[in-house]
Amino acid sequence: MRELDAVLFDIDDTLCPTTAFAARARHNAVRAMLDAGLRAGEEQVYRELEEVIAEFSSNYEHHFDKLLLRLDHRAVEGLNPALVVAAAVAAYHDTKFRELAPYPGVRELFARLADSGVRVGIVTHGLTAKQAEKLVRLGLVPYIDAAAIFISDQIGVAKPNPKLYLAALKALELAPARVMYVGDNPRNDIAPPKSLGMRTCWARLSDKHAPPQNAAQTPDHEINDFAQLSELLRSRYGLG
Amino acid sequence: MRELDAVLFDIDDTLCPTTAFAARARHNAVRAMLDAGLRAGEEQVYRELEEVIAEFSSNYEHHFDKLLLRLDHRAVEGLNPALVVAAAVAAYHDTKFRELAPYPGVRELFARLADSGVRVGIVTHGLTAKQAEKLVRLGLVPYIDAAAIFISDQIGVAKPNPKLYLAALKALELAPARVMYVGDNPRNDIAPPKSLGMRTCWARLSDKHAPPQNAAQTPDHEINDFAQLSELLRSRYGLG
Repeated sequence: MRELDAVLFDIDDTLCPTTAFAARARHNAVRAMLDAGLRAGEEQVYRELEEVIAEFSSNYEHHFDKLLLRLDHRAVEGLNPALVVAAAVAAYHDTKFRELAPYPGVRELFARLADSGVRVGIVTHGLTAKQAEKLVRLGLVPYIDAAAIFISDQIGVAKPNPKLYLAALKALELAPARVMYVGDNPRNDIAPPKSLGMRTCWARLSDKHAPPQNAAQTPDHEINDFAQLSELLRSRYGLG
Repeated sequence: MRELDAVLFDIDDTLCPTTAFAARARHNAVRAMLDAGLRAGEEQVYRELEEVIAEFSSNYEHHFDKLLLRLDHRAVEGLNPALVVAAAVAAYHDTKFRELAPYPGVRELFARLADSGVRVGIVTHGLTAKQAEKLVRLGLVPYIDAAAIFISDQIGVAKPNPKLYLAALKALELAPARVMYVGDNPRNDIAPPKSLGMRTCWARLSDKHAPPQNAAQTPDHEINDFAQLSELLRSRYGLG
């Protein structure tokens, strides 16, 4: 018998390797700046870029402009800095559009769940346009329930506030115990839905986050890949 | 004998078919919105998008959001509008990155001029990041003199103010009569440099602009393609 009405997912480092992918995109951006004439060492520029991102947040729009301001002025002498920045932005975007892909098995699982009538949804933290673009780029939109996409920026509530998950449950009119949430961050993705009585699954596909630090963060399930999740949903919850 | 020290170019509809290309990108964006579930007619949505762009300017950042606000609310009922917007943005960008290319012969001419020691530069009107990205995407950066790129947004002077061209002449320390400017718009690209004593060439590769309206806008030369410009620079000015 089917025991779940919906499975909701985090996006970053749960459905796709966002962190590893961002590092690759940044490396390509730095190399493009050097190709565009920037006079500095690749490692130095990369480290400076990481500092900018840490200081101004990953969602800040002008990382590469700030990066140039921080380098010795001789690094861009005789160049138009706008061209160096544009080369970086183009390389970053090209990496993004060429390489961003879901973890193996994600699309197949989403397709199977959608076919079987279980609602597939998203609860994610981030900027609306960026998170929505990821879903489009990952090719997952056709399988996701259009009414079951909850982006913190659209709701006005950020993880780990359980109200974000509560908003999803209310909008979908679902009982917490009949909804599973899958995410990679014990603090943000396990503790809050668990506190509402939802089922929780810790996705350990990246090694970004430490294991649960306390009972509140301890998930009902752990998976290392989407084959395991597929099998779990089939054998334990009668899905698909 | 060589009679020019530099040839400076406009970008949009001079080096690449910006207007035709933007129309194609917008059509692809509208189709992506319909694929994402938007319930409206393609022609209606396209016309509405053109109105938004006319009203909010082509450099406004949120055309697609505004477009959704203008449609009947039933057009997005049950959808997350952010996904519809993201589908449009992704389709627009994909068109841009896949299709933006210089007119035939541009790269060859730039390479030949750069090889022969003539300075190849840009004087363009627009937002810094957008114009710089176009040069990167067009693959023209390797041939352009890094110190000879003048973007109105960086200079603080907009076409048709001749001060924009004067800033270029001063920075490059060149005599006006030894510099040619090539552009598609008689009012913005011919009259101002001509008023400073520069050589002017009207590039008629798109049919966006009407012919010169008066003597001030009348160019020294007209070209219909870059083979003609190449031949003109060779035979008349001794370049290459």
